[in-house]
Amino acid sequence: MNTLVEPSQKNSSPLFGTNSAKETILTPKPGLGRRFRDVRCFSEKICEPLEPEDYVIQTMPEASPTKWHMAHTSWFFETFVLKRFVPDYDSRHPQYNFLFNSYYNAVGPFFSRPHRGLLSRPTVKEVFQYRSDIDLLVSELIESADEPLLEKLESIITLGVNHEQQHQELMVTDIKNVFWHNPLRPGYRNRQPLKASSVPVMQWLTFEAGIHSIGHNGPGFSFDNEGPRHRVFVESFGLGSRLVTNSEFLEFIEDGGYRRSELWLSLGWNAVNEKHWSSPLYWEKREGKWFTMTLAGMTELVPEEPVCHVSLFEADAFARWSGGRLPTEQEWEIASAQSSLEGNFADRELFHVGPLTSSNGCEFAQMFGDVWEWTQSSYSPYPGYAPAPGALGEYNGKFMCNQYVLRGGSCATSQLHIRRTYRNFFPPDARWQFTGIRLAKDLV
Amino acid sequence: MNTLVEPSQKNSSPLFGTNSAKETILTPKPGLGRRFRDVRCFSEKICEPLEPEDYVIQTMPEASPTKWHMAHTSWFFETFVLKRFVPDYDSRHPQYNFLFNSYYNAVGPFFSRPHRGLLSRPTVKEVFQYRSDIDLLVSELIESADEPLLEKLESIITLGVNHEQQHQELMVTDIKNVFWHNPLRPGYRNRQPLKASSVPVMQWLTFEAGIHSIGHNGPGFSFDNEGPRHRVFVESFGLGSRLVTNSEFLEFIEDGGYRRSELWLSLGWNAVNEKHWSSPLYWEKREGKWFTMTLAGMTELVPEEPVCHVSLFEADAFARWSGGRLPTEQEWEIASAQSSLEGNFADRELFHVGPLTSSNGCEFAQMFGDVWEWTQSSYSPYPGYAPAPGALGEYNGKFMCNQYVLRGGSCATSQLHIRRTYRNFFPPDARWQFTGIRLAKDLV
Amino acid sequence: MNTLVEPSQKNSSPLFGTNSAKETILTPKPGLGRRFRDVRCFSEKICEPLEPEDYVIQTMPEASPTKWHMAHTSWFFETFVLKRFVPDYDSRHPQYNFLFNSYYNAVGPFFSRPHRGLLSRPTVKEVFQYRSDIDLLVSELIESADEPLLEKLESIITLGVNHEQQHQELMVTDIKNVFWHNPLRPGYRNRQPLKASSVPVMQWLTFEAGIHSIGHNGPGFSFDNEGPRHRVFVESFGLGSRLVTNSEFLEFIEDGGYRRSELWLSLGWNAVNEKHWSSPLYWEKREGKWFTMTLAGMTELVPEEPVCHVSLFEADAFARWSGGRLPTEQEWEIASAQSSLEGNFADRELFHVGPLTSSNGCEFAQMFGDVWEWTQSSYSPYPGYAPAPGALGEYNGKFMCNQYVLRGGSCATSQLHIRRTYRNFFPPDARWQFTGIRLAKDLV
Amino acid sequence: MNTLVEPSQKNSSPLFGTNSAKETILTPKPGLGRRFRDVRCFSEKICEPLEPEDYVIQTMPEASPTKWHMAHTSWFFETFVLKRFVPDYDSRHPQYNFLFNSYYNAVGPFFSRPHRGLLSRPTVKEVFQYRSDIDLLVSELIESADEPLLEKLESIITLGVNHEQQHQELMVTDIKNVFWHNPLRPGYRNRQPLKASSVPVMQWLTFEAGIHSIGHNGPGFSFDNEGPRHRVFVESFGLGSRLVTNSEFLEFIEDGGYRRSELWLSLGWNAVNEKHWSSPLYWEKREGKWFTMTLAGMTELVPEEPVCHVSLFEADAFARWSGGRLPTEQEWEIASAQSSLEGNFADRELFHVGPLTSSNGCEFAQMFGDVWEWTQSSYSPYPGYAPAPGALGEYNGKFMCNQYVLRGGSCATSQLHIRRTYRNFFPPDARWQFTGIRLAKDLV
Repeated sequence: MNTLVEPSQKNSSPLFGTNSAKETILTPKPGLGRRFRDVRCFSEKICEPLEPEDYVIQTMPEASPTKWHMAHTSWFFETFVLKRFVPDYDSRHPQYNFLFNSYYNAVGPFFSRPHRGLLSRPTVKEVFQYRSDIDLLVSELIESADEPLLEKLESIITLGVNHEQQHQELMVTDIKNVFWHNPLRPGYRNRQPLKASSVPVMQWLTFEAGIHSIGHNGPGFSFDNEGPRHRVFVESFGLGSRLVTNSEFLEFIEDGGYRRSELWLSLGWNAVNEKHWSSPLYWEKREGKWFTMTLAGMTELVPEEPVCHVSLFEADAFARWSGGRLPTEQEWEIASAQSSLEGNFADRELFHVGPLTSSNGCEFAQMFGDVWEWTQSSYSPYPGYAPAPGALGEYNGKFMCNQYVLRGGSCATSQLHIRRTYRNFFPPDARWQFTGIRLAKDLV
Repeated sequence: MNTLVEPSQKNSSPLFGTNSAKETILTPKPGLGRRFRDVRCFSEKICEPLEPEDYVIQTMPEASPTKWHMAHTSWFFETFVLKRFVPDYDSRHPQYNFLFNSYYNAVGPFFSRPHRGLLSRPTVKEVFQYRSDIDLLVSELIESADEPLLEKLESIITLGVNHEQQHQELMVTDIKNVFWHNPLRPGYRNRQPLKASSVPVMQWLTFEAGIHSIGHNGPGFSFDNEGPRHRVFVESFGLGSRLVTNSEFLEFIEDGGYRRSELWLSLGWNAVNEKHWSSPLYWEKREGKWFTMTLAGMTELVPEEPVCHVSLFEADAFARWSGGRLPTEQEWEIASAQSSLEGNFADRELFHVGPLTSSNGCEFAQMFGDVWEWTQSSYSPYPGYAPAPGALGEYNGKFMCNQYVLRGGSCATSQLHIRRTYRNFFPPDARWQFTGIRLAKDLV
Repeated sequence: MNTLVEPSQKNSSPLFGTNSAKETILTPKPGLGRRFRDVRCFSEKICEPLEPEDYVIQTMPEASPTKWHMAHTSWFFETFVLKRFVPDYDSRHPQYNFLFNSYYNAVGPFFSRPHRGLLSRPTVKEVFQYRSDIDLLVSELIESADEPLLEKLESIITLGVNHEQQHQELMVTDIKNVFWHNPLRPGYRNRQPLKASSVPVMQWLTFEAGIHSIGHNGPGFSFDNEGPRHRVFVESFGLGSRLVTNSEFLEFIEDGGYRRSELWLSLGWNAVNEKHWSSPLYWEKREGKWFTMTLAGMTELVPEEPVCHVSLFEADAFARWSGGRLPTEQEWEIASAQSSLEGNFADRELFHVGPLTSSNGCEFAQMFGDVWEWTQSSYSPYPGYAPAPGALGEYNGKFMCNQYVLRGGSCATSQLHIRRTYRNFFPPDARWQFTGIRLAKDLV
Repeated sequence: MNTLVEPSQKNSSPLFGTNSAKETILTPKPGLGRRFRDVRCFSEKICEPLEPEDYVIQTMPEASPTKWHMAHTSWFFETFVLKRFVPDYDSRHPQYNFLFNSYYNAVGPFFSRPHRGLLSRPTVKEVFQYRSDIDLLVSELIESADEPLLEKLESIITLGVNHEQQHQELMVTDIKNVFWHNPLRPGYRNRQPLKASSVPVMQWLTFEAGIHSIGHNGPGFSFDNEGPRHRVFVESFGLGSRLVTNSEFLEFIEDGGYRRSELWLSLGWNAVNEKHWSSPLYWEKREGKWFTMTLAGMTELVPEEPVCHVSLFEADAFARWSGGRLPTEQEWEIASAQSSLEGNFADRELFHVGPLTSSNGCEFAQMFGDVWEWTQSSYSPYPGYAPAPGALGEYNGKFMCNQYVLRGGSCATSQLHIRRTYRNFFPPDARWQFTGIRLAKDLV
């Protein structure tokens, strides 16, 4: 037991500052205007396959209509950029401040979230006009900015870009939910899924006990919830070399997983019974065969693919059934240092979990992309955490209750958006995101 | 007390069979194909001002998206005409039978009513294509039908036409509700309201006690709930010469009407408190002035107009406050014999209550059109009532519980649709229809 | 068709005023003090088998704890007798006015009805002390009253006596519900049910069309909702000679009655599905045998007994299934003239439906007592109805909405309480009262 | 940065193993039979002031009737001791296994928790008889046990004793809630509160960063959730020398604390608005003065007393308003090493927060007893945590979701029950326990 301070030699690389440096090298930073326009374009690209009617639907309070996402992300730039930095800015649609504010109490009252699906106006066309008006004004502002202003704009527009990337992911997951609620099971887009190859046996990659530094402190952008960087002591642990597959999850189902109370957290068992869960979201058994809803419509379940659309409750029950447990977010972050920041991201526009392309089973696969990986860590502030001042302080901190941290990004996350220190969070019963399972275990 | 048998001489005309005869004279019946096409066209005319997004919204379980109305009325003809009378009929969209069946258990399972607003597909365009496909096939069927078939078609298509007229009214009231839920308060159509002139003092027109025949038995179409024609004994009563106005209802409000429990039915008092009612639906007080939502957007309240969008509870409380009561449906039907079947109907496309154009106060005004008039009569079967056999038997009878009868049609009802014997019905807390108040009182 | 005015000769006796006269003869009226004490004693007699804990439970908002009934009926006399007629009356427990007012807004605010089961204090002992204090004071008031005061007391105390009889019935039905919610299925009292003999075939006793007078106008006490007496025209009808039995209802169940939507009112079908009804309340099938909860605990179902604890929805569905319908309350009242006011009432303290003791099938049996008989009549005001002035006006009128009339009294009703004109009322889904079915049918 | 490993010298004493040793010295362990009988007696002592009716009430799903607690704690010994260790044990009341199992799925189905208040039987007398039957049998078992059996009994009976102590605390808090729901505001017992003296200014006692061992590993009893003992790295922090007082919390209220969204977690802000919170539970303002419900009835609020009956949300909002934060459970446990395990516990039978008896402000006061102290730590498993096998494994682990850890015990906790490592847990909106606030802050 002599390794209290030093990270383990075998599986753990030095963490301090390295990851951000690596990222800087991999992604040379384009100009601010270019980054702004790129992200705005990608939102519109996601919308391309949609009909006007598709933009309107809200299937549940947690999801929003596509139209709302498209307007809200524009409102964000109008509110935090144009209103602040354009002298005598005169909003063309002052009512939008009420309609498209999501939850910033400091910015004023806002329209009830569960009722966003009751708004037929502004129309899709009007929302796109609103977007293009904002785009023009923001672009002009950037072009004409002097150095001191540009510095100010850099941080807030970068936040806006990251904010829009988050909503892009929600647009993909929310529209999938819309199509699934429709008995016609429409497809968003017909795209052939990639062929899956066979999956190697999962290995436990192990880490010795020791002190590690966790959280962001590099020069690049991060959300406030990723810092401050701080020390933690982590006992030795093992982490699965790859994600849990559909075929493994099917074993759990067939072993009565959804009917055995002893496998579940108490609240999870309530959810199973009240919501009549008997498989992951979007799964359907038809005449003995499992199918799953994808953005290309219903397709036969691919056993080799990582299981997706499970709640924390299901991930936790599966882990208990398998004899393992879910990792903590600290364990995940430590282990992630061994993986490059690559994977099946939104940039590939697959919007579906991919096959395991290359893995010898002896190193980590699928750490980034494909599915968000549930951790057992409650979403809570890091030591010394302080939210940003003003309205933007409402971005993260106030949600640190009854939610759980997910790591690694998914097939609907932009590659530029993700970091090793990135903390996503959802309530433990949420299933409509691309969420999956990587196992951990105690050593000794 | 010698008038037990004979209807009163002064105010009551002989009822037996006459009204239906009169209607026959007033409305020479056009050909079946023409009637079919006319009603189908009018539905589309109602849709003209709408954007695709407007068609999708469902604001409450009782209301439906416009798109759903347009598809359901077509499903009705497909199910009860084409599938029955076209040999080897092959439906292009078999799934529509699930999506657009409203509540006919005998036709098969149907999509959950409160979730109709979750369907973005089929799109508006596809629904209009569905309509025009059905229109073509029904028209062809009528054109090519021989006499025996035509006789069969006559009754079912006439039912379908009346069914569609009912949905036209719902389309108008449902879309009004959609626009009202939107804080932008969009207008459906900008149309100047008619100028209101002064309103004469309400008079009590009186009827002596006696036996009357109630219900339909003429040769024309009627719904099954209007029959069989039967005898009732009605004690003497008085009925108000005109509808209650906004200005009279404002007196009730200002006299604390919504805060005085003694004026309300027990369930009504619960509704007032749970739903925080303090005025009719669609009223808003802004800086001391009352406004009301119309299909042309928010407009200042016109005191001379009949009060509209009140529940049975409010109508009943107002009546109690005023010292009167609501009429029974029998009283209303008896009195209606004195009025011609004319008024402010959907045909005028005003879709708003009109001013009182001509009334000396000594005869009935506004008996037809403008607003449905709440009666105190629970919606229940007439003696000898038997629902139609088969699925269409579900049209009326099964709803005869916890609903109240309204009479006379509204500004959203087609003139050809209404009859003196027509029984509309809604739960006592419904307010989104064009519903208003005519007072009655006991004599002696 | 010459019988419009005269009631049918065969089955209908002259109604005008006769029934009240007959009752006067049958039940010579004891002194006021005696009647007061008798009814107060009977409430306590009903409580005898109860433990203190039994008095506290409220199983649903519609039911009340026994303790509450015992206190509320005393509050009634304190409020409407002592406070009004005892000079300088000084209430010992002013807070009881808040706790034990049921729903009289005019008397002041009252404790929330659904929370009556949250009160452990006052204790049972304290409530009985309260009762005996009130009893003493009311008795003294009666004894010492002069003639003019006695006249005033007569009407209000008679109302209080009738009010207490209503609560006695509720005490019996509410405590039955308490014991049924307990998996131990405790018995209230062990009493052998009477032996059932065979039941004769049901006959249709028929009545010709005509005008009848309905409602109370005799010299004796009645509730305001029983008047004013008024004329109705009733078409010819047939009424079943006896109640529907358990064995007949079992046929309905075995014929899929609870699974066939076409038999049900729409709201009834919702109730069946939401509340998972598949038999009358209190029925349980154990190893192929039907049992039912009684006040003596679970007992095997007796096929010959009248079916009990059915809602209006079930009564209506059964009637439709059988080819008949439910009677209107007018039909029932007309027919009841042929029966003497005798039956299985609370006075026998059986508190359970009894066997059919004597019936040749050619005259009415079981018209009074055993079970309240559902009618298809919505509970609504008679022509000319006006509620009493002041707080007591809240007794009946404000409940005339979404409830249905029941007639004839039950095994938990006091014989002195019932009348031919008596109108009981409950919502259409209520099942915990002793409610059953008598069939009617149209003639012609 | 040389203090990574060693705990700070100034404020932190060596933790390893010492605390349990100290406890052993302070509380010489009486014999098993004696400990069993003592705890059983104390439950009955708590019941002494209650009337039978008080035992029956359940005010909310989270609380239970006193009668249920008394039966359930007996069921625990019957199930886990008698049924396991008494050969051919024959339960007198086999139905109690269904009624009084709380949540152990492994033991079989159980009665619905939110409906525990619907059971009048078994009566209080029967439950006490059940208790005394169980007591006799367990005592006999202990007396007659040989050494190997005694060893087995020691661990399970000790668990049962601790289990009963937990229910004793719930009995006190649940009955307080019962009396508070009653508008009569009955007192449980009239006992003068202790006189409060002035409260010294709160000081920050500081701790340097370092590695600490957290969790139980001593020889004495602990719950499984307190282990395994493990290492954590804790950054430097300060902890308040005493609890937050009523007078300090009043400042928060008067500064608009309950109306300022920026002070609250998002879910907390929802709770404030949905539940209309504007002060701690049990506070009432009457004519400008604050009162609070105690077990002696309503009493005027004592400014010097620690604030009590606040949720995590309120504790967190107060901390944010004050410029501080809540401690983590690790920080609390580290700091607690400086306090002796003494305080205002249930043993004093005060059942109310006490005054601050002696504090110079430079050392910790009130760390134990008075109120449970909310921490910001989500209730989650320690590294290496494994629940006990079998039914008792359901004791703790399955609740580790969406709850927060509280430390230190309250005025309703038995002194023998508490430990420095003890982890209590409740959902963040729970307020009916004796819960209060100790502030923490980051250093640097």
